[in-house]
Amino acid sequence: MKSDTTMGGRVTIPTDVDVVPETLELIRRWGADAVRDCDGTDYPAGLRDLDAKVYSTYYTTRKDNEWALANPDEVQQCYIMTGFRTSPGGELRVELMQGIAQELLRVNSQDDITRWWEVVDRTSGLPLPASDWSYEEETETVIIRNTRAFHEYTVSFLAYIIWDPVHMYNAVVNEWKDVDHQITFDVRQPKTRAYSMKRLRNFIENNPHVDVIRYTTFFHQFTLIFDDLRREKYVDWYGYSASVSPYILEKFEQEAGYPFRPEFIIDQGYYNNQYRVPSREFLDFVDFQRREVAELAKEMVDITREYGKEAMMFLGDHWIGTEPFMDEFQKIGLDAVVGSVGNGSTLRLISDIKGVKYTEGRFLPYFFPDTFYDGGDPVSEAKNNWVTARRAILRNPVDRIGYGGYLKLACQFPDFVDYVENVCNEFRLLYRNIDGAQPYCAKKVAILNCWGHMRAWGCHMVHHALYQKPNYSYAGVIESLSGAPFDVVFLSFDDIRKNERILDDVDVIINCGDADTAHTGGVEWEDPLVTSRIKRFVYEGGGFIGIGEPGGHQYQGRFLQVSAILGVEKETGFTLGYDKYNWDQDKAHFIMADSSDLSSFGEGKKGMYALPEATVLVQEDRDVQLAVNSYGQGRGVYVSGLPYSFENTRLLHRSILWSSGGEDDLLAWFSSNYNVEVHAFPEKGKYCVVNNTYEPQKTRVYRGDGTSFELNLDANAILWYEID
Amino acid sequence: MKSDTTMGGRVTIPTDVDVVPETLELIRRWGADAVRDCDGTDYPAGLRDLDAKVYSTYYTTRKDNEWALANPDEVQQCYIMTGFRTSPGGELRVELMQGIAQELLRVNSQDDITRWWEVVDRTSGLPLPASDWSYEEETETVIIRNTRAFHEYTVSFLAYIIWDPVHMYNAVVNEWKDVDHQITFDVRQPKTRAYSMKRLRNFIENNPHVDVIRYTTFFHQFTLIFDDLRREKYVDWYGYSASVSPYILEKFEQEAGYPFRPEFIIDQGYYNNQYRVPSREFLDFVDFQRREVAELAKEMVDITREYGKEAMMFLGDHWIGTEPFMDEFQKIGLDAVVGSVGNGSTLRLISDIKGVKYTEGRFLPYFFPDTFYDGGDPVSEAKNNWVTARRAILRNPVDRIGYGGYLKLACQFPDFVDYVENVCNEFRLLYRNIDGAQPYCAKKVAILNCWGHMRAWGCHMVHHALYQKPNYSYAGVIESLSGAPFDVVFLSFDDIRKNERILDDVDVIINCGDADTAHTGGVEWEDPLVTSRIKRFVYEGGGFIGIGEPGGHQYQGRFLQVSAILGVEKETGFTLGYDKYNWDQDKAHFIMADSSDLSSFGEGKKGMYALPEATVLVQEDRDVQLAVNSYGQGRGVYVSGLPYSFENTRLLHRSILWSSGGEDDLLAWFSSNYNVEVHAFPEKGKYCVVNNTYEPQKTRVYRGDGTSFELNLDANAILWYEID
Repeated sequence: MKSDTTMGGRVTIPTDVDVVPETLELIRRWGADAVRDCDGTDYPAGLRDLDAKVYSTYYTTRKDNEWALANPDEVQQCYIMTGFRTSPGGELRVELMQGIAQELLRVNSQDDITRWWEVVDRTSGLPLPASDWSYEEETETVIIRNTRAFHEYTVSFLAYIIWDPVHMYNAVVNEWKDVDHQITFDVRQPKTRAYSMKRLRNFIENNPHVDVIRYTTFFHQFTLIFDDLRREKYVDWYGYSASVSPYILEKFEQEAGYPFRPEFIIDQGYYNNQYRVPSREFLDFVDFQRREVAELAKEMVDITREYGKEAMMFLGDHWIGTEPFMDEFQKIGLDAVVGSVGNGSTLRLISDIKGVKYTEGRFLPYFFPDTFYDGGDPVSEAKNNWVTARRAILRNPVDRIGYGGYLKLACQFPDFVDYVENVCNEFRLLYRNIDGAQPYCAKKVAILNCWGHMRAWGCHMVHHALYQKPNYSYAGVIESLSGAPFDVVFLSFDDIRKNERILDDVDVIINCGDADTAHTGGVEWEDPLVTSRIKRFVYEGGGFIGIGEPGGHQYQGRFLQVSAILGVEKETGFTLGYDKYNWDQDKAHFIMADSSDLSSFGEGKKGMYALPEATVLVQEDRDVQLAVNSYGQGRGVYVSGLPYSFENTRLLHRSILWSSGGEDDLLAWFSSNYNVEVHAFPEKGKYCVVNNTYEPQKTRVYRGDGTSFELNLDANAILWYEID
Repeated sequence: MKSDTTMGGRVTIPTDVDVVPETLELIRRWGADAVRDCDGTDYPAGLRDLDAKVYSTYYTTRKDNEWALANPDEVQQCYIMTGFRTSPGGELRVELMQGIAQELLRVNSQDDITRWWEVVDRTSGLPLPASDWSYEEETETVIIRNTRAFHEYTVSFLAYIIWDPVHMYNAVVNEWKDVDHQITFDVRQPKTRAYSMKRLRNFIENNPHVDVIRYTTFFHQFTLIFDDLRREKYVDWYGYSASVSPYILEKFEQEAGYPFRPEFIIDQGYYNNQYRVPSREFLDFVDFQRREVAELAKEMVDITREYGKEAMMFLGDHWIGTEPFMDEFQKIGLDAVVGSVGNGSTLRLISDIKGVKYTEGRFLPYFFPDTFYDGGDPVSEAKNNWVTARRAILRNPVDRIGYGGYLKLACQFPDFVDYVENVCNEFRLLYRNIDGAQPYCAKKVAILNCWGHMRAWGCHMVHHALYQKPNYSYAGVIESLSGAPFDVVFLSFDDIRKNERILDDVDVIINCGDADTAHTGGVEWEDPLVTSRIKRFVYEGGGFIGIGEPGGHQYQGRFLQVSAILGVEKETGFTLGYDKYNWDQDKAHFIMADSSDLSSFGEGKKGMYALPEATVLVQEDRDVQLAVNSYGQGRGVYVSGLPYSFENTRLLHRSILWSSGGEDDLLAWFSSNYNVEVHAFPEKGKYCVVNNTYEPQKTRVYRGDGTSFELNLDANAILWYEID
């Protein structure tokens, strides 16, 4: 059953010592061809000879406290900034660990604190000379002498990660008792590096039944800090703050050629999160880490391969520095990547990775007691997850799907087992039908932000696929695109600067987010090279869709630096003296043709007004929500926000077509009902019609040649057709 | 009747040639002791011997086209910036007058355009050398050569004001036909200056019946531009853009000692409006204008006095440069200031002026056909105006009230005549009772912004007393304070910098407005001297009330630079990774004791969250609207916005007391019902209880000693009591 057959394959299930018969039963019913263990489960001896691939999680950086305790200097480290402390004058005492879980971190005062720590006067913005402060070991307190009265101070310091944050999270959430805190050691450092290679060989040699080493993961945990009440305090799924140590930073300093400052990582306490317009120093550091991590990970992959095993990376936990969308990643030589699928965006986060033999999506729900309890409804969560992810799978499928958790729990819900059986069959069918073909793309769309390809599909993501009120109106755009018939690329301002031709084959640029964030670009819009290239692109016929505060950055008489393109501007008070007369709404516009009064712009934006030349489509109480404009041969569309919904997906679809002058392309591989989508694979001669809702739908389906037919679909249905 | 008697006086009415008997009748009924003409009316010969003061409007800068046409080089001028023009490359033609009323302005190309105009590349931010552009007179077009493709350009130029903007407004609104466009001449320039003094003498000599020269006004019109459809295009009641000419600017340049740039006035097209953090150059220019205007105005006032007449200034129209709250104003030596009263704030804008013998408020409605038409309801407008202004009068009264327009129209509404009779009597009674006494002030409150005393009571005002959606939540604070029992001062950041002791007798600082505007301070918060003085003030026991985005300016890890004081911060994306747990609301707080669920924060603010140490009083969908915090011995209160209402006035009242530790002072000269207010004048042994609503109210009135009594008040009633 290791091969992909009509009836089975492409599915991974979890197992445990107490569910051997159930495992066999589900291998049969779901067509699973791989089994796996999880954090907290063990692989049963009785399944060692199974005709299925066996995955084993491998914790590169933890589950070996003996080593960690013997080598405390090579425990992983994290940069932390204390909160702001106001000095009333004189001496100021700053307790470093205030509000931080003591069981998670321990202050590193072993390394030279005058070099690796920094006390900053946040009122003047200047770091203090080390002679102005000292450290009191017993109270973990920095004492700042001769402070300036009513200035605020922060201390940036290094701390050892004495409990792996994910292990701590699992232990706290699952209320594990008396569990040894797994310490995170740093494979990048010399002793641990040498040891880790031996440890890996030992593991492989001692587990001959394992086919796939599932690295969880490589070397650096994304930033995840808990507070003194064991609650999450800070999280950044893309964070690099826990990928540091003096050893690494000295190497970086040598390579960079300029002196390192803790502030490069601390970033005023914002830790270079993805909303920050990245500093050159941070980008240099990420570049450095990518190269170093790839080189070291390759060493492990080579060992894996030497033993005839496959190397799979889990896209999570200690994934920092691997950056699967960047070139270095492919040099690691992994066989596979597996990641959790929370929605369409996170599906593409996996399936768009290049340079591996296969990708695998871990679907929801986990077989955990929070969902699989008496009276729980795992089926509806599974449906929601599948239907959301399916849109993205139809654009670019993962090669496999799988589940995690305690299999025993799932078996107690026969409806769930039935539903997943259907999902597995449906997945295999669509995978076979697509068969690696490019889907029909109506247009090529470029998401423009400071991160470009490195943060493809993850724009606005803070914690993996989690909702955030301030950004759902923007994340919705990425989610819509993850399953829409467009070729989507992610460009940075650097890309635009470095390559004059990069926009040549792009139809539409999207700039989406709040002002002065990395998502809209901030100070990048002061660069004439960037702005003139973008304006030329639109002027010569391109489309530009701005969402939220596109190009939002106060400069030279404008708040929105693309207001000439979009025909809208934001009132920040500076233009209150200008009378605004353009408020009439054109509700009959092409973009709005499928919109109801229920369309929602989410958080929306206050103070947006239209310039005289623009056409307002929607304004609410004199805040423009949707407007269109002409700019040379091109067009601009302004939208205040686009939370994910089928109706908004259609609005975006129409905006993309209209802005690039493609209104006539609408009725090709198109459904009149926006709850239904059509995906075509011309080179395979197939197309499918998909009902994304949980109710039956009626629609008119347009083929590529514009011919059409009426169709009724069952709830969730996907119907496949041959192209005549 | 020129004296103030119990039964009459302190009231001015308009008259006209066709209403002689009506004028006499209203003098009797309203107790008027002064009559006036208006723009469009004439003083009747039959009233020349009246026993009442006669005011005559005097137009210093217009109503003499013979002079203006003979001296076109001394017609007033205005700086204008064209809109942004994108160049596709090569030569770019910019039509200067596009979108501007041709009848209002005419391009001034007589003066050296290479010196007084400026072409700015707004993409690079740099001005172009004059050799890069030229002017085509016949098409009023600037031609920019060799532009950089897809850069945006603007042209700043000087234009003559060939139709006085207020005269144009009156002509357009009243549909005056075949009216000569009154040209605005510049009294500051040498020929017109000499001529104007003679002209003034002539006027006074030819109008011996006139007692008061009502200057309308001195020399420079606030900025008021109309578009090609005769609609208002740009207005700034505080604007200096129309107070310029090469003559004036050369003088300024000599005094300032640095080269003038049009950009000092143009300010990227924002024209230094009051939302802009003012540049040093603009402040220098305003200083210069104040001194020059005061000197010249004094010359006219001296002539007026020489003839035994009174000099009164109208606070409006050509009032720019007089700045009645600044020291230079008092040197002019005026007898009186009269201004339009739109609400409490604009009442204080007049009554708080120092250095004149008396102030006069022109009340609404004007006797114009837009209100006094068949079926119109001028009484309700008058009631609304009176009750709103009365709060402020009770804090600091104007010395006189008056009306304007066509008296004939008013006489057609007997109810209106009756109501105004009551108003006049009520005004005289309260004026006599107050008799110059200081009202009881519970606390001293300082409004802190970039303008300080110069923009006292006018903060956030764009056009005189007009509503603006983006600022009513802030203007409401000023309106509340205009009639509240507090001593209110207006401080600038410069005041704080220059005088270490300036906060010594202040109880509470209020900082109110949007981020990065002059109202909150923007970059001023990067000055450690400013921030440390403010923090010290609060830390040592002061109160700080922040409204909107107080101290809002991204710097060193904070968006709100006063977040340590207020315990709130704004989510701009940079702190999304930080978990926020502080959402429980304390609805029983002292500040909220009189608040209902109907209390409104107006536009509110998105993304405001509380730091762990703060106490949230109100949050809506996880946006904090109201929160309190302790800071050293002092306290901070955060409010997202406070549109004017009686309930919000009470909320502000309680916030002021609580933040300065004055909860125990609440029940002194206080009404339990917030629709009713108590004003006490201890030195006169009097207090009054005022019903601010149009319905009867019941309340408990607290005297200064804490004793109290129940009271029922009629609609609008004001009751006076002796302090025992």
